[in-house]
Amino acid sequence: MEFDTIAAISTPMGEGAIAIVRLSGDEAVQIADKIFKSPNNKKLDEQPTHTIHYGHLIDPKTEEVVEEVMVSLMRGPKTFTREDVIEINCHGGIVSVNRVLQLVLKNGARLAEPGEFTKRAFLNGRIDLSQAEAVMDLIRAKTDRAMNVALGQMDGKLSKLINQLRQALLETLAQVEVNIDYPEYDDVEEMTVPIMLEKCSWVRDEIEKLLQTSSQGKILREGLSTVILGRPNVGKSSLLNSLVQENKAIVTDVAGTTRDIIEEYVNVRGVPLRLVDTAGIRETEDIVERIGVERSRQVLKEADLILLVLNSAEELSQEDERLFETIENMDFIVVVNKTDLPQKIDLDRVKELAGNRRIVTTSLLQEEGVRELEEAIAALFFEGKIESDDLTYVSNARHIALLHQAQSTIADAIDAAESGVPVDMVQIDVTRTWELLGEIVGDTVQESLINQLFSQFCLGK
Amino acid sequence: MEFDTIAAISTPMGEGAIAIVRLSGDEAVQIADKIFKSPNNKKLDEQPTHTIHYGHLIDPKTEEVVEEVMVSLMRGPKTFTREDVIEINCHGGIVSVNRVLQLVLKNGARLAEPGEFTKRAFLNGRIDLSQAEAVMDLIRAKTDRAMNVALGQMDGKLSKLINQLRQALLETLAQVEVNIDYPEYDDVEEMTVPIMLEKCSWVRDEIEKLLQTSSQGKILREGLSTVILGRPNVGKSSLLNSLVQENKAIVTDVAGTTRDIIEEYVNVRGVPLRLVDTAGIRETEDIVERIGVERSRQVLKEADLILLVLNSAEELSQEDERLFETIENMDFIVVVNKTDLPQKIDLDRVKELAGNRRIVTTSLLQEEGVRELEEAIAALFFEGKIESDDLTYVSNARHIALLHQAQSTIADAIDAAESGVPVDMVQIDVTRTWELLGEIVGDTVQESLINQLFSQFCLGK
Repeated sequence: MEFDTIAAISTPMGEGAIAIVRLSGDEAVQIADKIFKSPNNKKLDEQPTHTIHYGHLIDPKTEEVVEEVMVSLMRGPKTFTREDVIEINCHGGIVSVNRVLQLVLKNGARLAEPGEFTKRAFLNGRIDLSQAEAVMDLIRAKTDRAMNVALGQMDGKLSKLINQLRQALLETLAQVEVNIDYPEYDDVEEMTVPIMLEKCSWVRDEIEKLLQTSSQGKILREGLSTVILGRPNVGKSSLLNSLVQENKAIVTDVAGTTRDIIEEYVNVRGVPLRLVDTAGIRETEDIVERIGVERSRQVLKEADLILLVLNSAEELSQEDERLFETIENMDFIVVVNKTDLPQKIDLDRVKELAGNRRIVTTSLLQEEGVRELEEAIAALFFEGKIESDDLTYVSNARHIALLHQAQSTIADAIDAAESGVPVDMVQIDVTRTWELLGEIVGDTVQESLINQLFSQFCLGK
Repeated sequence: MEFDTIAAISTPMGEGAIAIVRLSGDEAVQIADKIFKSPNNKKLDEQPTHTIHYGHLIDPKTEEVVEEVMVSLMRGPKTFTREDVIEINCHGGIVSVNRVLQLVLKNGARLAEPGEFTKRAFLNGRIDLSQAEAVMDLIRAKTDRAMNVALGQMDGKLSKLINQLRQALLETLAQVEVNIDYPEYDDVEEMTVPIMLEKCSWVRDEIEKLLQTSSQGKILREGLSTVILGRPNVGKSSLLNSLVQENKAIVTDVAGTTRDIIEEYVNVRGVPLRLVDTAGIRETEDIVERIGVERSRQVLKEADLILLVLNSAEELSQEDERLFETIENMDFIVVVNKTDLPQKIDLDRVKELAGNRRIVTTSLLQEEGVRELEEAIAALFFEGKIESDDLTYVSNARHIALLHQAQSTIADAIDAAESGVPVDMVQIDVTRTWELLGEIVGDTVQESLINQLFSQFCLGK
């Protein structure tokens, strides 16, 4: 395949020690040679692959020195994109790296679209689609465990399993074709239905096993959207601080400029907790007052987990009871705080309201109970048995949706086969299953989808 | 010199395509070999310098795969620090790069202090102190011109000039020594005073020339702290938007978490304008109301430039006159806005109040006059004659302070020599000048100062 040469800034924007402008394509080395000058005037084109060269970038038009750089020369196919790749390491800083990018663009490179480097790795066959998607998951991973899942997927773990399933289906389909094309081999047909059923059942079981990992996989990938709820002064902000301090906030997202909702990620036993509206809690101690009734209902609706905080030193109020009502169909954990003060709360009533949900007692003031709460959170979503890292998790919403569809079409195929529908009719469902699984690895996927998928990548990857 | 092996994340934190963990020191290659596994099991220690190697990082304790990486191997002395340097390019992302850093720290590297890589380059004699300081200026440069100044300084332009001055002083001192140590050469002494005067005068003139570039250099380096002032509804926020939109904000700084003061940088003809309290202007249109009288006086006092906006369609108010009084001793430009409406303002009175300051008329609504304003700003600070990039600017406050001291000691030396003070007394002032200039390039500088200087660097540089 032939492609033009693309370029982008591949390090995060900001002030740092080193920034990288990456080029990929047939002309990458020639473009670099136009602007690069080493102290002994060597040409990159004449250098061996996978070598590093010190020098300056010079604007060929003005002969002005643009930057002091280290240039890494890597020839395809042993590169990220399988094409010739040049990486220009320059001094970090916004002006510096932009100047370098402008210079390579002026000298023949095209600005890469988001994800275009990884897209080329996919189009050039170095990785399949699920591996490419894992590249982005890796960058966005919020915890170690999430990163291990992404690393496994990037390594081809998921692809390998999916390809095994597809292979089994393909063999079944081939068998059917033989039966249809050569109906004279009457004795073979007798075997086809049981064989087909056996293979299809195996595929169905494997898909179900994969789907069982999906809720955990999705949490690892996207974080557990968590809201801390409770009346004013029950200790919501202390709880937030305990969670953030003990686990060290991974990153803070500000959605939009209005600062309406601030999210903080904390790592609770490998589970990334996305704490929603932490600013609201910090500033007003009252999520409802802060973001309005309508908005806060939406926030609650989208939450994966509610931490309902009650004050042990006060009797249950009507407001507390109303909060229980609001969240009755959701996953929540009750935190009975301020156990350092004389107990006034009716714990039996709390248990009644909580139903089968966990109740944790804490004295955040005395730093007691946070560990128990964290265990309760981990237990709720991983049921105590966090799987070993060897397990192939499905974490990507696109993969999960495709697996659900495949689960349904393979079930149809099995039903049909069992109820004596002609084999060549069953074939349609099996083929559809094979296609759906193919979309996961990008084998049977449409170009428009590919473009859309890669456009969600960050620039320079 | 022998040093332990240091490591740090050298790219800005954030989600990006590539992140780099850099190691420097005697053990860098061995540490990398402990954790790096290439597909064909090659040892980095046996590879030639300045080469790139693909593989995985493996935790030697758990044998777990930590990351997929490219490792750059560069042996000293042809490296940034002159020591052996390993750069581990991993997938961008906060978890990923932190895992790699933790792994190298667990296997024998020590976390680098801010600026420690550059400090080693300095201590190992690859660059002098003013060049090291330029490295940081380069990273923080807000405009092309500022970056060119830093690039020139990093290349040793300033050092070369300073070293010439010091050489001249040293020769004079040597001459004096000869005269003192060998008083029998009576005839030589006669020559010493005129020679000394001549050399000292040349040094003084050069220092003065350098100091003349300092106000511009400082602006290029740090940006021109600019406040937009005016009554409510005269068009302050329109002016801010025009400047930001036409010039594209370079970067937005939020000082502290309270968001009291937000700064935006815009590039006006190569001059980085640091617009102060842009949030205040956007939100309340009134800097005084927003940040309080005491605080806003402080902001005004620290400003390099005030843009005083008046409403052409209203008569001058008492408040306008008071604003003129407040800023009477400062650099300001008067912006008479809303010229699209019928004029009611008394322009003669405005001219009277403005004194010799520039008055620019604008209709920001109709996008008129912004270009003239930008020219006025450039003219005010570069007096129309922006120097060529070849000029050596002094931009660093430390250098400027040292040059001012040197200017004073060399003047003392000249005065003393002219008034017939014995040559060996004059020598003291000349020696002090030589030392002061030496502090700029780091020749006569104390270790505590060096530590303090490098601690202002960013991590990983």
